[in-house]
Amino acid sequence: MTGVHAPAALGGAASLVSSRLAEFARDMHWPDLPTAVQREAVRAFLNWVGCTVGGARTESAERAIRGLNAMSGPGATPVLGRAERLQPADAALANCLASAADTFDDTHLSTITHPTGPVAAAILALADARRIAGRDLLLALAIGIEIECRISAAITAPGSGASQGWYITGVSGGIGAAAAAARILNATQAELLAALGLAASQAGGLRATHGSMAIAFVPGFAARNGLTAARLAAAGFTCGDAVIEGRNGLLSVLAPQAEAGTILRDLGSRFEMLGNAYKPYPCGIVIHPSIDACLELARHRPAPEAIEAVDLAVHADALALCWRKLPATTLEAQVSLFHWAAAALVRGAAGLDEGDASAIADPRIRALQDRMQARVDPALASGQARAEVRLRDGTVLRAEVAQATGSLERPMSDEQLAEKFRMLARRRLGAAQLERLLQECWHLPDSGDAGEIGRLGALG
Amino acid sequence: MTGVHAPAALGGAASLVSSRLAEFARDMHWPDLPTAVQREAVRAFLNWVGCTVGGARTESAERAIRGLNAMSGPGATPVLGRAERLQPADAALANCLASAADTFDDTHLSTITHPTGPVAAAILALADARRIAGRDLLLALAIGIEIECRISAAITAPGSGASQGWYITGVSGGIGAAAAAARILNATQAELLAALGLAASQAGGLRATHGSMAIAFVPGFAARNGLTAARLAAAGFTCGDAVIEGRNGLLSVLAPQAEAGTILRDLGSRFEMLGNAYKPYPCGIVIHPSIDACLELARHRPAPEAIEAVDLAVHADALALCWRKLPATTLEAQVSLFHWAAAALVRGAAGLDEGDASAIADPRIRALQDRMQARVDPALASGQARAEVRLRDGTVLRAEVAQATGSLERPMSDEQLAEKFRMLARRRLGAAQLERLLQECWHLPDSGDAGEIGRLGALG
Repeated sequence: MTGVHAPAALGGAASLVSSRLAEFARDMHWPDLPTAVQREAVRAFLNWVGCTVGGARTESAERAIRGLNAMSGPGATPVLGRAERLQPADAALANCLASAADTFDDTHLSTITHPTGPVAAAILALADARRIAGRDLLLALAIGIEIECRISAAITAPGSGASQGWYITGVSGGIGAAAAAARILNATQAELLAALGLAASQAGGLRATHGSMAIAFVPGFAARNGLTAARLAAAGFTCGDAVIEGRNGLLSVLAPQAEAGTILRDLGSRFEMLGNAYKPYPCGIVIHPSIDACLELARHRPAPEAIEAVDLAVHADALALCWRKLPATTLEAQVSLFHWAAAALVRGAAGLDEGDASAIADPRIRALQDRMQARVDPALASGQARAEVRLRDGTVLRAEVAQATGSLERPMSDEQLAEKFRMLARRRLGAAQLERLLQECWHLPDSGDAGEIGRLGALG
Repeated sequence: MTGVHAPAALGGAASLVSSRLAEFARDMHWPDLPTAVQREAVRAFLNWVGCTVGGARTESAERAIRGLNAMSGPGATPVLGRAERLQPADAALANCLASAADTFDDTHLSTITHPTGPVAAAILALADARRIAGRDLLLALAIGIEIECRISAAITAPGSGASQGWYITGVSGGIGAAAAAARILNATQAELLAALGLAASQAGGLRATHGSMAIAFVPGFAARNGLTAARLAAAGFTCGDAVIEGRNGLLSVLAPQAEAGTILRDLGSRFEMLGNAYKPYPCGIVIHPSIDACLELARHRPAPEAIEAVDLAVHADALALCWRKLPATTLEAQVSLFHWAAAALVRGAAGLDEGDASAIADPRIRALQDRMQARVDPALASGQARAEVRLRDGTVLRAEVAQATGSLERPMSDEQLAEKFRMLARRRLGAAQLERLLQECWHLPDSGDAGEIGRLGALG
């Protein structure tokens, strides 16, 4: 392609975003994925299965499944960590919702998308009804995550014009899920294009849901929306050809100054999957550097009563997204910087126990939040934080985190991921079933039937 | 309530939008509705049933239902004009989609919301499983439409900051559907609040779907979303208390300059239902004044070949939304000002036949579009248009429409609505079944079982 005017050339590419994404989803094959991406697909899926089993009996999941059951009645599709079988769309919603209920799911760090849930839940619902090889499931997962995160990146880029109130996983998650599900269904180019458009036309999700059960509903409905889009497209239902990038399309409506062409940059050679991270702590990712700093200070074992004041210096996102102090519920605590920093200092730990109702009510954790301040330091990157504890005897303890645990620079190891999986899955599964499921996840690239995950991970 | 600062007082009310809407949905009773609103609820529902039966075998409905069946399999909930029974959420989606497939559904004129589809489809899906009196269904319909159109009005108000690319029925329709379905389920205040929030968090819909089958999918998914929101809320699933008006909520994200307080203005005494209109022609409402003008000129029976040029003067919305010329498909024709103006002139009619494939391909209709110009006249209101035809012999014919047929000033009469119902329903139902269904709709306020509509309107 030649052209005198670079902007016109870019405009040309930008006007083909949907069709190029559809081609990508149609034409990629497992061997085309770099080894690192293949490996990360396995790790992302394994982390997701653990989070889903672990979240299966949270109150959020209990009530959502009760409501879905009241609406649709039982179906045939497994729900991980549960005995019920649901309708496929309901199972996709429920599995994704459960995976997000502990806010322990993965994070595409540069966009704060939680990418695996909507995609994995949509395609796992298909893997029960038809035999799908493990690597076909993982390929579809990688395709879906790639499309999802690229759309997130265009919308969340500075200057795009998008509101920060969008809950980006809800906006882009259904589109990734639709692409992945359509690929599983062997969709044609036209069907893939329709699936992308039908998913984009359903895009939504608001951060106002944070602090309530609905924080997990938004990824959940993205999974359902993507599955529905792929199913309608496979039946020949049509949509516009440029619903992502075109006139009155997703970008023009949500992010009018977004550069659509960036969605296609290095597509097929650069993978957003490699920007995905796994959480060591069950709370908002922007809180994690502060937790690391407080856990480091907790090694000095300061008595909580002896602490006069705590000062946190954080990246702007930490306060913009997790500004809550003295949360009243476990759901509010999931997005409370102050709760988690205090809990880490008081207990020297930041696991599931530190997010439960007794931790929220713990008077030592609550009292410490009253003596805690946080301020934004523009010099800090999103994975960085500083904590300073002043004791009543005048001692000052300082910790500085340059790279949070679970960041791309300090990723969770395979062993750490396995331990996280076990910690979560043992809530619902016996030891033998748990280890079989874990091994099935590690060996998914060699499996002839990815539906085994659903059957092994469900009860009864 | 007293206060020195009016803005603060407004801010107080504005911060209670969701909870006041929930109270309204909980506390209204059928006798509280003015007679005109009760009557309009019956007319809106009857018009919707006719559109749904009429659209049941459109290609859009065929393919959507095939896709939903492939996803979920059969269920127990009737689909009007069809023999299949579907899962409730799928049936809500399919019935609403069918009702919109011919773009013959109703229009809240000041916001161009198509209000009845999402609400009616969601609550009809409930009326099959539980016995609901006709007036309870109509009350829920009136409540849902009221909430839906008030939210539409806040978002589409000039200066709200909302993109014109939003397909407003998708944005507000699910919220109205959720309120109506929650009321049918006898929801508490807290459950209603959660239902509103869960629906708002799913709000979406893009005008980029126009010209494709997906123009009917957007209202369709709003029905499904509202039903799901109500079911989850009834099971105790929680959401934020101010997802419509609060921080990172619907208005702040979609329409940051919207005045939230206007949603509550005269709530319970002024009814948006009275701003709802029924279409005499199966195409975009903004085209209708031009059709009226062209039908008037067609009475002079000008031979199409004798027409040298046609000039249309229209409201800005007509060209902004229906700018297409020489549409390639029936779906593009639904939103083509030029197609319908030409068809009305050539055939002297603007019914279902003028929107079908043979009309799109009619060389006389296509040739006339090439000789047709349209321009915006800022002096024209949205229900107004002028048409001027210059014949080759020098004759000039002029028509001016001050109030379109089907406008609030010239509403469809009950007899006209009944004729529209018959024209649509006879596509799918025999004469006896059609007349029984029509009578059941007229007498719905006295029915003890609104589920009869679903059973009478379905086949087999």
